Amino acid sequence: MKHLSWDTTRREKIHDCKIFDVYEVDRTSYDGSRGTFIQIEAPDWVTVIPMTQDALGNQCFMMVRQYRHGNQAVTTEFPAGTVEPGEPPLQAALRELLEETGCRPATITKIGAVSPNPAFLTNTVTYYVAEGMEMIQAQELDEHEIIDVELVPVNEVLHSMGTGTYSNGIMVAAMAFYQRWRGLVADEES
Amino acid sequence: MKHLSWDTTRREKIHDCKIFDVYEVDRTSYDGSRGTFIQIEAPDWVTVIPMTQDALGNQCFMMVRQYRHGNQAVTTEFPAGTVEPGEPPLQAALRELLEETGCRPATITKIGAVSPNPAFLTNTVTYYVAEGMEMIQAQELDEHEIIDVELVPVNEVLHSMGTGTYSNGIMVAAMAFYQRWRGLVADEES
Repeated sequence: MKHLSWDTTRREKIHDCKIFDVYEVDRTSYDGSRGTFIQIEAPDWVTVIPMTQDALGNQCFMMVRQYRHGNQAVTTEFPAGTVEPGEPPLQAALRELLEETGCRPATITKIGAVSPNPAFLTNTVTYYVAEGMEMIQAQELDEHEIIDVELVPVNEVLHSMGTGTYSNGIMVAAMAFYQRWRGLVADEES
Repeated sequence: MKHLSWDTTRREKIHDCKIFDVYEVDRTSYDGSRGTFIQIEAPDWVTVIPMTQDALGNQCFMMVRQYRHGNQAVTTEFPAGTVEPGEPPLQAALRELLEETGCRPATITKIGAVSPNPAFLTNTVTYYVAEGMEMIQAQELDEHEIIDVELVPVNEVLHSMGTGTYSNGIMVAAMAFYQRWRGLVADEES
């Protein structure tokens, strides 16, 4: 796929935003075109899908509700956060889950990883499923985090995603990986 | 959900990156906390899932391969792009599909919409399915776009997402909406 690739000829930080850095990059393509592109260097992220059951025995997710400063709205989504420098992603997943919900899972399984936005983000988001949730402590939130935890039936999330507070694209991608891992998706027939 | 919400007290553009603007925003929470947050104001995006069949009658997607300047890799994903100022998203979807593949669909259907990254992006991405693809012209690419078009069986995308060139999170979210719209996902049993 060499004819699609570009070589970097300059890379310069043009803004430091604390949660990420903005770079300007010059690149040349295989056919000799030159262009300047924006790149946002962000730390890797993790998203954890905590499986549990409600009092009626319905298969549920433990989800978090919080205000999101990008779209200026409250979202209902999966516990998630940033991987610290040198921290293994699995460790970050367990840490974020504990901080946001107070729970430790019996097992945690990686179910997928993607570039959340390869057009300009450098980073990777890794998705996990957590099973056997046990509450072991109170929430331990970062400054400026205000998070409600609630159990939502899996089927409600499937039917609601893309509407109301189920508006986070990272959560919808998590659903695609969850459904595949859980064996809920049928192949297309020829 | 008032206790989760924040009020904006200052909003200042701190960088203009051509494809988006970076803002710094001061907000106060319901309980009186104050914080400064980063917001990236980007135009809305559209993603189109073009359905077609290959010579063997397999249900396929018409996908695009291109170099992505964020993750510095070639991705295989759905035709997608930016909504122009004042342009209806449906129009943008048809335009991007035509530019990247040379095709016009018989029907196009909205299947979902999300905030691609509500933590810091202001915008919305709307997902469409296009059926009855007819090639009516050559590709009409923007400067610096080098795009290969290829047919990929739906089942291959389902099984490959998150690996190799199937690494775009926006594409994986599109798969979740596609599978729901197409009736391929079973409910969880209680």
